Amino acid sequence: MHHAAGAERCEMRKLVVSVAQFASGPSNMDTAEGLVREAAKGGANIVLLQELFETLYFCQTEDGTQFANATTLEDNQAVKRFKSVAQELGIVIPVSFFERRNNAFFNAIAIIDADGKNLGVYRKSHIPDGAGYREKYYFSPGRTGFEVWDTAFCRLGCGVCWDQWYPEAPRIFALKGAEVLLYPTAIGSEPKNPTLDSLKHWRAVMQGHAAANMIPLAASNRIGVERASDGSSQISFYGSSFIADIHGQVAAELGRHETGVALASFDLDELRHERACWGLFRDRRPDLYEEILSLDG
Amino acid sequence: MHHAAGAERCEMRKLVVSVAQFASGPSNMDTAEGLVREAAKGGANIVLLQELFETLYFCQTEDGTQFANATTLEDNQAVKRFKSVAQELGIVIPVSFFERRNNAFFNAIAIIDADGKNLGVYRKSHIPDGAGYREKYYFSPGRTGFEVWDTAFCRLGCGVCWDQWYPEAPRIFALKGAEVLLYPTAIGSEPKNPTLDSLKHWRAVMQGHAAANMIPLAASNRIGVERASDGSSQISFYGSSFIADIHGQVAAELGRHETGVALASFDLDELRHERACWGLFRDRRPDLYEEILSLDG
Repeated sequence: MHHAAGAERCEMRKLVVSVAQFASGPSNMDTAEGLVREAAKGGANIVLLQELFETLYFCQTEDGTQFANATTLEDNQAVKRFKSVAQELGIVIPVSFFERRNNAFFNAIAIIDADGKNLGVYRKSHIPDGAGYREKYYFSPGRTGFEVWDTAFCRLGCGVCWDQWYPEAPRIFALKGAEVLLYPTAIGSEPKNPTLDSLKHWRAVMQGHAAANMIPLAASNRIGVERASDGSSQISFYGSSFIADIHGQVAAELGRHETGVALASFDLDELRHERACWGLFRDRRPDLYEEILSLDG
Repeated sequence: MHHAAGAERCEMRKLVVSVAQFASGPSNMDTAEGLVREAAKGGANIVLLQELFETLYFCQTEDGTQFANATTLEDNQAVKRFKSVAQELGIVIPVSFFERRNNAFFNAIAIIDADGKNLGVYRKSHIPDGAGYREKYYFSPGRTGFEVWDTAFCRLGCGVCWDQWYPEAPRIFALKGAEVLLYPTAIGSEPKNPTLDSLKHWRAVMQGHAAANMIPLAASNRIGVERASDGSSQISFYGSSFIADIHGQVAAELGRHETGVALASFDLDELRHERACWGLFRDRRPDLYEEILSLDG
């Protein structure tokens, strides 16, 4: 029986991560569930859906009527639905949603474990602002900090969109033992600068996180063209959801216009071994890092 | 006259960065000087030479006789020589050297400004150890911290080799206003693991620094095969020196076996503008980063 137990434990350290992407439409929940089921059929243990997938990306303009769509964690329909799906399929499904708590609004994500239970909520810490991405109007910056989540398959670190541009968060996740990093996203063209395509920049930052921390990283982004609710602008979301390996190389990806899922398989024990042997965490110098806590050096 | 002064100031914000690479041989100082002159002819304002270019990479094995080659800053021949060259050519030349101070030994770099004066010394903070890279035997970890240097052309941040794997240092350089990041290097094959090629990993980490901080980054690495002084191992250094732009993309590079220089030109005012508009530094959350000062979360 020891042999079988050992084999089982070993089996548990194989992890299949997947990312889904689709264009927002009239039946986002159905579309999302369909892709989750497709990924699960492919062997996925974790399926990452895109940021705020219940609705259009409503932050293109400052539209006060949108606050009515925010819900508490308990009342959120996507969280409810994907708790059932997660339990049925035995997989982890983080669910991004527009959270209301009393008078505060957050860009939040609930980490639904493979038994359908919610492990907790992370609230987006870094809030962007700029033409087409008016998030500072909607969301208070989260103060949950960068906690990690012990799911059925691995220890997860999870940020949301703009968080993905900051090396501090993945480092903290890594120091807490995260084995996979997840970032749901909504990013595309820049309404004020049609020639700017941030795709390569966006990927390079996250590939850097994966490489510097030697942890696989998955990012899910929406596709499609969406108009602001007041018609003042539009964004072409560039998809290109991907999974980076521990050397920062793209292990799986989707195209700019492709609806679907991408999967990548990792042996977490092997990655942990390689991470230790390379020695990066051994040689850190926290005694020299204090200035990171400043805004201006 | 105001117009002319304005034009002159503007001209100063154009910066040409260059990296040199060569195989260690019997006349490294001459080789290095030749490449520096070649880069200067091409318009370089800064030439980055590789790590510890005076000698073979002596850290392959633990060889106590090597300590006799360490010098004080004042006595170092490379520093002396390139102070003259820097002054003659009016360019910035950081000089990596094996530094002795009383009973302490450091992997140091002197930042020689365009007037031939030394702005100061940075001492490598992150010291590696592993087969073929026995640096913990030779060097105390530096405690200079991550200072920036106001050269004639721009504000520089400079780390050394293994430092390049740590996102904390470039972030601190950036918070202090660094406009270009420099990393001299000695990296190649792994004597204990001939199938491991870390080139893409090495680059991805540094491309991530450039992209996350939106600062150009230059890395210079040696080429050639070198045997350990006791013959116990050998390393094939993989060159591939490069300059990354602020989106983390390779703007200029050299091959795995190529002797030479690569140059890239930047408009520092334009980069500063783009950095501000993108908003990354605005949205940092130092109140959430304290755990970076820990070793284990």
